[in-house]
Amino acid sequence: MTVTPHLFIPGPTNIPDAVRMAMNIPMEDMRSPEFPKFTLPLFEDLKKAFKMKDGRVFIFPSSGTGAWESAVENTLATGDKVLMSRFGQFSLLWVDMCERLGLKVEVCDEEWGTGVPVEKYADILAKDKNHEIKAVFVTHNETATGVSSDVAGVRKALDAAKHPALLMVDGVSSVGSLDMRMGEWGVDCCVSGSQKGFMLPTGLGILAVSQKALDINKSKNGRMNRCFFSFEDMIKTNDQGFFPYTPATQLLRGLRTSLDLLFAEGLDNVFARHTRLASGVRAAVDAWGLKLCAKEPKWYSDTVSAILVPEGIDSNAITKTAYYRYNTSFGLGLNKVAGKVFRIGHLGMLDEVMIGGALFAAEMALKDNGVNLKLGSGTGAAAEYFSKNATKSATALTPKQAKAA
Amino acid sequence: MTVTPHLFIPGPTNIPDAVRMAMNIPMEDMRSPEFPKFTLPLFEDLKKAFKMKDGRVFIFPSSGTGAWESAVENTLATGDKVLMSRFGQFSLLWVDMCERLGLKVEVCDEEWGTGVPVEKYADILAKDKNHEIKAVFVTHNETATGVSSDVAGVRKALDAAKHPALLMVDGVSSVGSLDMRMGEWGVDCCVSGSQKGFMLPTGLGILAVSQKALDINKSKNGRMNRCFFSFEDMIKTNDQGFFPYTPATQLLRGLRTSLDLLFAEGLDNVFARHTRLASGVRAAVDAWGLKLCAKEPKWYSDTVSAILVPEGIDSNAITKTAYYRYNTSFGLGLNKVAGKVFRIGHLGMLDEVMIGGALFAAEMALKDNGVNLKLGSGTGAAAEYFSKNATKSATALTPKQAKAA
Amino acid sequence: MTVTPHLFIPGPTNIPDAVRMAMNIPMEDMRSPEFPKFTLPLFEDLKKAFKMKDGRVFIFPSSGTGAWESAVENTLATGDKVLMSRFGQFSLLWVDMCERLGLKVEVCDEEWGTGVPVEKYADILAKDKNHEIKAVFVTHNETATGVSSDVAGVRKALDAAKHPALLMVDGVSSVGSLDMRMGEWGVDCCVSGSQKGFMLPTGLGILAVSQKALDINKSKNGRMNRCFFSFEDMIKTNDQGFFPYTPATQLLRGLRTSLDLLFAEGLDNVFARHTRLASGVRAAVDAWGLKLCAKEPKWYSDTVSAILVPEGIDSNAITKTAYYRYNTSFGLGLNKVAGKVFRIGHLGMLDEVMIGGALFAAEMALKDNGVNLKLGSGTGAAAEYFSKNATKSATALTPKQAKAA
Amino acid sequence: MTVTPHLFIPGPTNIPDAVRMAMNIPMEDMRSPEFPKFTLPLFEDLKKAFKMKDGRVFIFPSSGTGAWESAVENTLATGDKVLMSRFGQFSLLWVDMCERLGLKVEVCDEEWGTGVPVEKYADILAKDKNHEIKAVFVTHNETATGVSSDVAGVRKALDAAKHPALLMVDGVSSVGSLDMRMGEWGVDCCVSGSQKGFMLPTGLGILAVSQKALDINKSKNGRMNRCFFSFEDMIKTNDQGFFPYTPATQLLRGLRTSLDLLFAEGLDNVFARHTRLASGVRAAVDAWGLKLCAKEPKWYSDTVSAILVPEGIDSNAITKTAYYRYNTSFGLGLNKVAGKVFRIGHLGMLDEVMIGGALFAAEMALKDNGVNLKLGSGTGAAAEYFSKNATKSATALTPKQAKAA
Repeated sequence: MTVTPHLFIPGPTNIPDAVRMAMNIPMEDMRSPEFPKFTLPLFEDLKKAFKMKDGRVFIFPSSGTGAWESAVENTLATGDKVLMSRFGQFSLLWVDMCERLGLKVEVCDEEWGTGVPVEKYADILAKDKNHEIKAVFVTHNETATGVSSDVAGVRKALDAAKHPALLMVDGVSSVGSLDMRMGEWGVDCCVSGSQKGFMLPTGLGILAVSQKALDINKSKNGRMNRCFFSFEDMIKTNDQGFFPYTPATQLLRGLRTSLDLLFAEGLDNVFARHTRLASGVRAAVDAWGLKLCAKEPKWYSDTVSAILVPEGIDSNAITKTAYYRYNTSFGLGLNKVAGKVFRIGHLGMLDEVMIGGALFAAEMALKDNGVNLKLGSGTGAAAEYFSKNATKSATALTPKQAKAA
Repeated sequence: MTVTPHLFIPGPTNIPDAVRMAMNIPMEDMRSPEFPKFTLPLFEDLKKAFKMKDGRVFIFPSSGTGAWESAVENTLATGDKVLMSRFGQFSLLWVDMCERLGLKVEVCDEEWGTGVPVEKYADILAKDKNHEIKAVFVTHNETATGVSSDVAGVRKALDAAKHPALLMVDGVSSVGSLDMRMGEWGVDCCVSGSQKGFMLPTGLGILAVSQKALDINKSKNGRMNRCFFSFEDMIKTNDQGFFPYTPATQLLRGLRTSLDLLFAEGLDNVFARHTRLASGVRAAVDAWGLKLCAKEPKWYSDTVSAILVPEGIDSNAITKTAYYRYNTSFGLGLNKVAGKVFRIGHLGMLDEVMIGGALFAAEMALKDNGVNLKLGSGTGAAAEYFSKNATKSATALTPKQAKAA
Repeated sequence: MTVTPHLFIPGPTNIPDAVRMAMNIPMEDMRSPEFPKFTLPLFEDLKKAFKMKDGRVFIFPSSGTGAWESAVENTLATGDKVLMSRFGQFSLLWVDMCERLGLKVEVCDEEWGTGVPVEKYADILAKDKNHEIKAVFVTHNETATGVSSDVAGVRKALDAAKHPALLMVDGVSSVGSLDMRMGEWGVDCCVSGSQKGFMLPTGLGILAVSQKALDINKSKNGRMNRCFFSFEDMIKTNDQGFFPYTPATQLLRGLRTSLDLLFAEGLDNVFARHTRLASGVRAAVDAWGLKLCAKEPKWYSDTVSAILVPEGIDSNAITKTAYYRYNTSFGLGLNKVAGKVFRIGHLGMLDEVMIGGALFAAEMALKDNGVNLKLGSGTGAAAEYFSKNATKSATALTPKQAKAA
Repeated sequence: MTVTPHLFIPGPTNIPDAVRMAMNIPMEDMRSPEFPKFTLPLFEDLKKAFKMKDGRVFIFPSSGTGAWESAVENTLATGDKVLMSRFGQFSLLWVDMCERLGLKVEVCDEEWGTGVPVEKYADILAKDKNHEIKAVFVTHNETATGVSSDVAGVRKALDAAKHPALLMVDGVSSVGSLDMRMGEWGVDCCVSGSQKGFMLPTGLGILAVSQKALDINKSKNGRMNRCFFSFEDMIKTNDQGFFPYTPATQLLRGLRTSLDLLFAEGLDNVFARHTRLASGVRAAVDAWGLKLCAKEPKWYSDTVSAILVPEGIDSNAITKTAYYRYNTSFGLGLNKVAGKVFRIGHLGMLDEVMIGGALFAAEMALKDNGVNLKLGSGTGAAAEYFSKNATKSATALTPKQAKAA
């Protein structure tokens, strides 16, 4: 069989042909006098994707994990106290990183399937009269459980407490797919990566930083030792349109195209599409008689659905069947929910028919593994939803065509 | 929206990534001393795809239509009588070509939805004691109506009548997808193109020719004037591994990879996959309460299904909805069945999940246009079929990987 | 060694990255309702490349040879008398084709290294009072000998004789590289292919036809039997933005980008670049103490130089050394000049430094095979020329960037 | 102009078409059950490129700078004393990094144009009886000045002093191009990146680590805080064929092809080719009457030549002319040698004719900026060298073909 496996994991996402094509280029001279004419507008346009008011966006040749580390190392000092919450594999890993980097982490452990405990945060912040807490962390979208959290709510809690702590957001599986209003919500560091909403291969850690965080970094009061991920080296060279070390130029060219596509569709249309596609998936899950890992609608993520399989059935068997029998990759259950959930990623370059294919594969794999469902129930429910809610699609082979559409 | 439209027309088909990648190369010197090391084995391997015993395969930089013309011009003379049948847009066009090229065509006009009238052919051949009929034409797979015809049956009719006429087969939408036993069936010219079972872009007319037809060509008794499509120019240069004019080297490189993929999967596995996928589609059509254009199961094509829409509904409205609302291309109804059928192509690089997506789009487009069906019924019926009949898939990014799988 | 061989043959030419990228796409539906929005402007823009006043351009999935055949079959009838000249492998082959297609060809055999004998043509036309000659043929650029001919001169001869014959031009290795003023020169059929000045892979025969020739075609007085290459089938479908059979969509998308690049550079700048690069090559040949096959400067081609090697030396040994020792393809000597010349193609996507590389390889290969020359003399002479005449280059990764430059 | 700029910087290097093609793929599931079948052999084969005896190779989605940081953070503790030398921009930056990461650096400042002072190192190590020095650093190839240093010599110095310090080598612009015998020379950490000898885009930091260094890391006595670059997270997941965070799968697939190409050519043939090409460049520099920045032949680098321009001439003007007038990128002079040198990178995918083009561009740019040289002298001298020393080239479009050649 010669079909590349169908990919419905919550990142890396599928890449638009226009992006793939834009990266299929020879190497280029990253110190050429023409290079800044490309990079400087790219830096500016990237800010739009974060809806930033001030500050800047750094692009590291790394991954979201690297951008996490950069955010922490450049704005916090060893021994600083921070407020975090843990309710899934990725929020868990960020806590782990902060601890290993020497921060004193106050962790709110929440049930997996829920998200950031805004009210608990509010209490803790209100009580922290001495402002010992230097930063508050929010995992905007917990990829492991399909849970979105309320960033604006945390901002309100900070404001209510008149607390100066930095607001650190993991937007890896949200930026470019879910609305991220960095300026309006007063986010100080927003971490993202190339392989999710930006619809690119893995390889870029993208970190948006507010002016407040940049100022703190500049004061250099005991920030952590760092070099590769340092803001100051980046700023010095980025200001001229260059980088402190060799940048991943193919990915940067792809990012240019990706931003063009996002802007051509319109960010708000992109977000609406994600909501629409996620709603179709949730209609299917409901029709199958299954439940999401996310406990309540307010936690539902529009970029990934973690689906609980019935007791006595191993979700790993389902993903294996999907992979080997139906040539389709779904996300595994990780850590506490290993064997209990499988995940359908529905972010990035995606449309209704792709979702239809994903659900088609999923219901066969579920049925094959003993889940009692009616084949066609999930695809039918999603079709019902899309038939009512689909919008006119524009077909695009190139960004230029996308713009015209 | 940045998703390239989903393609379910009966050719051009979807291209495997490995094939697409193989063609993404610089130009090369088609007279280099190394070139024959590539072309000579390619010519040989191509014969396997036709299951030929003797003869040779020509590759013209053209299309299936060009290969039709080459077959006729090189083996028949102006004024020759030939036996053809007409029961769809492509069998019709081949008749039209033969008439324009000056042949005397005895046409059997059959109902659209049926195929080559083997018994009628047998009668005519039996009566043609003087062997005025120089060639008998068979459209193996009529792409417009989704009808397959019985090539072996026509061979039997020829043999029964001890008739020396050439057996000319249009295999454009069959070779590489349906079983074509050129040697066993005594086919003299089998016409194909790159963009169907060979899973390549359009641009190659591929023509397999038996030794008998080559001998007739060589005798040159009043064959038609020709140059671009002439066998003799091809033979002279092909024998050295070259071409009489500049060949489409990118497509040739892609063809190499395509053959590697077909052989790695195994031709018989490829045919079985087409039957399986077609069966899933037919299960869906049945579940929708619709009928195929093909009148009886014996005519059912495993590479394309032409689906009759209910009276009073315009099939063009359905294809437009599919295209503009669901980003999906289906085949239009052509000529006599325009407005009455839409076609799902299910040949080339394709698997169960892609079929699921196609049916998902089709049933929404049908429903949106007033067809009374239950959403999920078609995808459910296909899932039912595939869940019972799917085989272990192998995931492949490269031919090498495909081979290993 | 992993370097793709350097290509300096007179077509296929090197492909711009932007063109290569534009073709690295999935298949598309050539009957989609959006397709004409792409093709109709393409047809129009293509006319600019020929500087046509009226008429139209046909795009056949074939090669230049196919377009030759189309031009002849659609405008001339079997038995028609035509005037041609023969002075190289490609003018020779066109004569051969016309004879095989049944035309009565009056051939002027000229010395290889010279071109179309304008004065002889003028005499013959003046004497043809009954206008028995239906068409006059000109090979604008004879690729085998590196000779350009005077199309405008032939037009003047026709006008002087008030002769209504069609003016048929082989522009395969000229259009897009040398100035072709189809309208001003009253050319009726101008044949081209994708793999030369259009900087694309082989696979398109591009045929520009004047309104006069279209009118003659329409009158249908005994035109030749034809189908694949017929104007009428093309016109009927092209007018709607479609094609009579499946078009080579990847190449069409590439052609769009190629035209964008040519127009972005400016056609006259493109021609000037070809003259500049050719002048550099000729300076090198002179420095080596060698001669061109072209007898006089008036015959010098700006797209290919056929270089005579000294007596006693086999030019095939030189091309083999270049290929196997220096990873570089040059054009072979063909037919009468086999073993006597090797050819440097300098058309299409090419700049000074690439020419430098070609000359570097050539002088090593010449020296290795016993030609008495000073290494560095050719590259030095070309450098001298370019250092004086080079223009500011613009670096381009995409057509968009090329436009901006 | 539509030609992508010619690239002769000392990395990123030119990418083989086979590598470019191998990366032109859709995203894949980095947690699929088939993924380890790809990664585990890749890890093993990578060790061959370093000629390691034991230990392992880490692949970080970062750059060489990131791999520098990983080497330091995982094997040394804040406050550790290390021995380094500084004689060019990259050795300087590594010193800077070590200081910023809190090491006590004993720096030998050497003249730019020389390399690691092996005898001075020997003295210092001999005197360090208490083994306060925890690591000795060697920049194998200083990219800024075109200087190679004697790694084996430093090993001898360590052995002579019976000194247990780690031997840390920057092999960014050497591994895959110059001989690196990690096992034989007892190198403990060898840093490399994807965009030099591995002929890939930037984006991978490749770090080879000896068992000794791994053991030290495991003991965890005060190693630096780290997470993204930590060995332990990598080891835990790599052992299963996975990664601790999303890997850059396109680059990994490209790396597979790159290794295939290197092994097909044979590592020792690759090194010999670099020496041959470098010798050609040096012959040209000599013919121009110019000097290398490297003071003596023993320092000459086979991957990059930094060429001193005559007094009174600005080397930046030369690189600008090369870029804007001749579409060619050379390396700039950096830091102390800014304006004084320009650099020709001659590593990675490169052959004689490409070098010819580079020299052709360089001598025009030099001449245009007032350097008194004879055009053709440099290309002539290189041609002289190559004509005597070139080997049979094999032409390759795919790794498979490369292997067969």
